[in-house]
Amino acid sequence: MWIVPEAAINGLLDHDDAFTAIEAVFGAMARDDAYNFPVVREALGGGRQYGFKSGLDRAGGQLGVKAGGYFPGNADKGMINHQSTVFLFDPDTGVLQAAVGGNLLTALRTAAASAVSIAHLARKDAKVLGMIGAGHQSAFQMRAAVRQRRFEKVVGWNYHPEMLPRLADTAAELGLPFEAVSLEELGAQADVIVSITSSEAASLMDAHVRPGTHIACMGTDTKGKQELEPAILTRAAVFTDEVAQAVSIGECQHAVAQGLLTDAAITAIGAVINGAHPGRTSDDQITVFDGTGVGLQDIAVAARAVDLAREKGLAQEVAL
Amino acid sequence: MWIVPEAAINGLLDHDDAFTAIEAVFGAMARDDAYNFPVVREALGGGRQYGFKSGLDRAGGQLGVKAGGYFPGNADKGMINHQSTVFLFDPDTGVLQAAVGGNLLTALRTAAASAVSIAHLARKDAKVLGMIGAGHQSAFQMRAAVRQRRFEKVVGWNYHPEMLPRLADTAAELGLPFEAVSLEELGAQADVIVSITSSEAASLMDAHVRPGTHIACMGTDTKGKQELEPAILTRAAVFTDEVAQAVSIGECQHAVAQGLLTDAAITAIGAVINGAHPGRTSDDQITVFDGTGVGLQDIAVAARAVDLAREKGLAQEVAL
Repeated sequence: MWIVPEAAINGLLDHDDAFTAIEAVFGAMARDDAYNFPVVREALGGGRQYGFKSGLDRAGGQLGVKAGGYFPGNADKGMINHQSTVFLFDPDTGVLQAAVGGNLLTALRTAAASAVSIAHLARKDAKVLGMIGAGHQSAFQMRAAVRQRRFEKVVGWNYHPEMLPRLADTAAELGLPFEAVSLEELGAQADVIVSITSSEAASLMDAHVRPGTHIACMGTDTKGKQELEPAILTRAAVFTDEVAQAVSIGECQHAVAQGLLTDAAITAIGAVINGAHPGRTSDDQITVFDGTGVGLQDIAVAARAVDLAREKGLAQEVAL
Repeated sequence: MWIVPEAAINGLLDHDDAFTAIEAVFGAMARDDAYNFPVVREALGGGRQYGFKSGLDRAGGQLGVKAGGYFPGNADKGMINHQSTVFLFDPDTGVLQAAVGGNLLTALRTAAASAVSIAHLARKDAKVLGMIGAGHQSAFQMRAAVRQRRFEKVVGWNYHPEMLPRLADTAAELGLPFEAVSLEELGAQADVIVSITSSEAASLMDAHVRPGTHIACMGTDTKGKQELEPAILTRAAVFTDEVAQAVSIGECQHAVAQGLLTDAAITAIGAVINGAHPGRTSDDQITVFDGTGVGLQDIAVAARAVDLAREKGLAQEVAL
């Protein structure tokens, strides 16, 4: 088996590598060439969460699982609170092929998912990127997003304004002007909005969103989390990574629970990637991508990481 | 993280090590100090099965998962069809601690479970061990079983009689006479019966079983498998590793589906281990242990394997 340690991931995969891997696996999912297994997610007590996201990608020849969770006491021990590892198995024999540090990969695959949605759903002439949320993941989302359109400016909002310098610094790193704004102003200016919060109530309201906007809603991955007023989803064309997960633990859970949205009205983005669905059909249409995060994303970027690490001599082979 | 390869397991754990680990974790489960997470089990096509059994053992300080499955094409490639690996994580931080080859461990933990049931439920004066099934796992079950009582003889039956030499050879290795018998004769002679088949219909019938017998029913771990006529369970005291799994995918599934048995009538063997339940209450009672196989068993023996391998210098430490 190959070991690709967490420390080897930084600089190994770039945003384009992750984009290509995620776009391919979303396409495979929509062709039924890849599917996710049921998610295991358990509360361990003391705020600790642990679980397993797994799946089979027949197109990519991958079988794998991400084991990981959230451990709120880690920061005090000098470790990051999110801890995960991706394991890859030979789908023909079940033999373990690789163990890959999954922390940075998770950030890259989540950023890549919103980037894929922008590439396929945002207006071609999008100029202003709106960022809701300024936590650790927001920098990854911004870096991946700006590669998809000729953005000229970033506007941002965060519930805790003292965290906004992260957005300003990231925009500066990308050579873009940044403006901290209200949510009303963010909706009025932005052509593309990436929402990446861990909120349990909607931040972005229907009245904030103007026609033509693309919203990548990336924070809601659990029952009870919410980023958007459900009314937004009723006037938007709604896309997601996996419909079953969107309606159960993704942003769509709320609109579905309120009877405002049905499964049948939600399109897997893979169908757009594959050309089976037109995606955006007018410049005035609002498009929403509900990025819930599936195990096949983790498997896809981990498989790419193993290939690159082996090429560069950064993978260690051990007998198991 | 520590790597304990499959090749290091042989000779590392003996049946007593496995017995101690399994008895402890069954006890912890019955005290709610340990619990299994939902099982993921998926058909991958072409007869391939894959899945994840995981859990948290607070008493033992273990969080882990066994990833594994069945790959019928492996034998033609010179590999065994069952392939599994156990991963252990620090329950306080989520950091991966060990990857352990899980093939031999699975055989040892399954054998240890029936041995624990014999130790706690069989009559003290049991003399004859009956074996139903002569596949690869049967030898492990017999070796673990004979350590629990002063057995003087082994009788055995298998659907395919040409496989019976495995039972005869194993009995000879253990210094015990062996007799191939009909199921009627097996029930008439045996004080303890271990059933380890992959049958989809009952082999052992109610009429075969005499009072006082202990039956460890170890083969049924999936919907549709069956080893015992359900009527046996209605006149027996029924024990299991985990009640929820026994009634859904264990031997109890059939009696429960037919309305012959309720969850409330099934006792976790951990309650007997902990002294909270008396176990067998008379020499005439029939006792049944429905061994379904839970992730915490895999985690318990893997944790013991890591400790022993580190003591003996057989574990490799790699950075992840």
